[in-house]
Amino acid sequence: MTETHATKTHASPTPLERGEALSQRLNPDLRAVLEARYDGLVPGFTDTLIEFAYGRLYAREGLDLKTRQIATVAALTALGGQTGPQLKINIDHALAAGASETEITEVIFQMAVYGGMPAAINGLNAAMEVFAARAA
Amino acid sequence: MTETHATKTHASPTPLERGEALSQRLNPDLRAVLEARYDGLVPGFTDTLIEFAYGRLYAREGLDLKTRQIATVAALTALGGQTGPQLKINIDHALAAGASETEITEVIFQMAVYGGMPAAINGLNAAMEVFAARAA
Amino acid sequence: MTETHATKTHASPTPLERGEALSQRLNPDLRAVLEARYDGLVPGFTDTLIEFAYGRLYAREGLDLKTRQIATVAALTALGGQTGPQLKINIDHALAAGASETEITEVIFQMAVYGGMPAAINGLNAAMEVFAARAA
Amino acid sequence: MTETHATKTHASPTPLERGEALSQRLNPDLRAVLEARYDGLVPGFTDTLIEFAYGRLYAREGLDLKTRQIATVAALTALGGQTGPQLKINIDHALAAGASETEITEVIFQMAVYGGMPAAINGLNAAMEVFAARAA
Amino acid sequence: MTETHATKTHASPTPLERGEALSQRLNPDLRAVLEARYDGLVPGFTDTLIEFAYGRLYAREGLDLKTRQIATVAALTALGGQTGPQLKINIDHALAAGASETEITEVIFQMAVYGGMPAAINGLNAAMEVFAARAA
Amino acid sequence: MTETHATKTHASPTPLERGEALSQRLNPDLRAVLEARYDGLVPGFTDTLIEFAYGRLYAREGLDLKTRQIATVAALTALGGQTGPQLKINIDHALAAGASETEITEVIFQMAVYGGMPAAINGLNAAMEVFAARAA
Repeated sequence: MTETHATKTHASPTPLERGEALSQRLNPDLRAVLEARYDGLVPGFTDTLIEFAYGRLYAREGLDLKTRQIATVAALTALGGQTGPQLKINIDHALAAGASETEITEVIFQMAVYGGMPAAINGLNAAMEVFAARAA
Repeated sequence: MTETHATKTHASPTPLERGEALSQRLNPDLRAVLEARYDGLVPGFTDTLIEFAYGRLYAREGLDLKTRQIATVAALTALGGQTGPQLKINIDHALAAGASETEITEVIFQMAVYGGMPAAINGLNAAMEVFAARAA
Repeated sequence: MTETHATKTHASPTPLERGEALSQRLNPDLRAVLEARYDGLVPGFTDTLIEFAYGRLYAREGLDLKTRQIATVAALTALGGQTGPQLKINIDHALAAGASETEITEVIFQMAVYGGMPAAINGLNAAMEVFAARAA
Repeated sequence: MTETHATKTHASPTPLERGEALSQRLNPDLRAVLEARYDGLVPGFTDTLIEFAYGRLYAREGLDLKTRQIATVAALTALGGQTGPQLKINIDHALAAGASETEITEVIFQMAVYGGMPAAINGLNAAMEVFAARAA
Repeated sequence: MTETHATKTHASPTPLERGEALSQRLNPDLRAVLEARYDGLVPGFTDTLIEFAYGRLYAREGLDLKTRQIATVAALTALGGQTGPQLKINIDHALAAGASETEITEVIFQMAVYGGMPAAINGLNAAMEVFAARAA
Repeated sequence: MTETHATKTHASPTPLERGEALSQRLNPDLRAVLEARYDGLVPGFTDTLIEFAYGRLYAREGLDLKTRQIATVAALTALGGQTGPQLKINIDHALAAGASETEITEVIFQMAVYGGMPAAINGLNAAMEVFAARAA
């Protein structure tokens, strides 16, 4: 039975509620920004993203939030290309989760081994833009 | 001046020596395995990899080794495809750096948001193979 | 309010329930196979995948299921690399959704324009394996 | 024999002629735009693209043009990165082939499962730009 | 006019005929192997590949065939993942076009800068398999 | 012994010194530009890049520099996406290594087979920008 199963796995808050709480902590404006931009075109877009990414994945136990965010910065750097805007958002989230600027640039530079030098360089450029925007 | 510059940035051990020390700590057989397989075909292969990846990147200050290895597992999962064998090696290195099996499967599953579900599933399959081999 | 929001967007069945119903239609064994393989290692894995992929995305209105599955075959072909096992599963799902073998090989071959010739060739190889397994 | 083979497979119009007819239907300006931009630098560029993509692939039987274009939008969304400009062109071609705006945003959103959330978000941004340009 | 245009750009042999001649030179069995494997499932597959890849691209003037094949080995190495089988075929073609084994391993190793270390390592593994098969 | 090993493989100049000499030849401003932009944020960044990419890879024997640069242009075109800025720099380096504009556009166009048409088109756009900037 799915429902029983779901009930057993997650206590009382639904995945959407847990995602809501976590995304608020990392980025209080996230829901409002996403809803305004995407929910007219794609009804339910924001619920889907928050439920899946934050409620079903980031809110899990077993790995602390700061390490999760550093790992996301690493992966988005290595993927490069289509992930530029999301990399900047997640650098902000990593800082919100307690990572230092140095921890962020270090993990980005390390990605030169896996994503190649261009990936690392573009990641550093993104970090510089985020740091500059926060300093301003 | 390059030499002066190099001297200033890194104290006494060369990047190759620092890489050697760190790769020994994570994986004592790494140099021997790589040399036997690649250095006949590509002279200097092993020195290049150890100097660059371990001496110039993993050995840097500013981010602890365990988090570096968890971030590498994340990135290799998200990249998928051509990185299967390296993902398994780095899951082993992450365990050697102090990560738990749960921390590893958690960061792999989280990559579903960025690399897609197939990337996460293939990463979990790789982790299961590594854990089973170590248990055997 | 999240809950109000969720209630407004989706009527009575939860995303997990809708995903359950749809995945059963495409592949009656999917939940059992995924649970047996992944839920011990990653509690809640199967619920997450079924809720997100089938409940939140495939079950949406606005595009028929057959076209959705053909589009997925196209995308997995173009992505190539890490998506080989998932491509085969989705070729099966596309047939279950009413696509013909020809529609499947046609959309795979078309991907030569976007993912390159190797992607198309590997996709055709995957289709040949699936068709042969079903014929057996 | 190649020629005999070619003759047998395709009736009288050459692949280039069939591509010409189809690309005119989807996008009457395509040849002129491509020739003006690329054929000076790379003689034969436009013939190659039209013959291969439209004459040899899109013009094939076995899958209707609308589904072909929806599948291309899906694949370009999942590939992301380097395919931004081509995604916008193919959203236009999908509309020309009879797809609705909703069918297009639905297939883009679905790609979150395979290309990750960033791919889906960037694809929706591209669709919003195309729809806005057409409305203007 | 397309036909006039086509006539002007390419003298007398058609793109398919030029591709046929060049692919025979690099790999006399290529057509037979491809036809036997793919043309039943996808009529015209082999003509499309030979016309496009060899007739429209490799047969062009302006860059010698050996450099073209070395560049292809480089690109397939950097892309990695889905291009493994094609990398091996093109290592064979590069040797047929006059490249030495050393030139091939050198260009593969160089790709570590752009595709990352895993790409270079997997490319070297592919080269070792091809060289061993030819020596046997 | 690592040191003995390193000594045996490379004569007297260190990898960093050899990289310095080669990068100066291809691009006299490279060190200054990279240091000014990245070394404050990531100490040692420029040494790492020059030592690894130019000292450990491009400076190797066994393949001439011009072919190495043409191969890099090919790979960056095929990778696309995150490599746009680096593609332009390497088109400049390929010209500095003796490649003609035609050799560059030819190898870029050829990548349509492996990276897909969008990759080739975006690569040609990059080449056009570089050629125009040099002509100005």
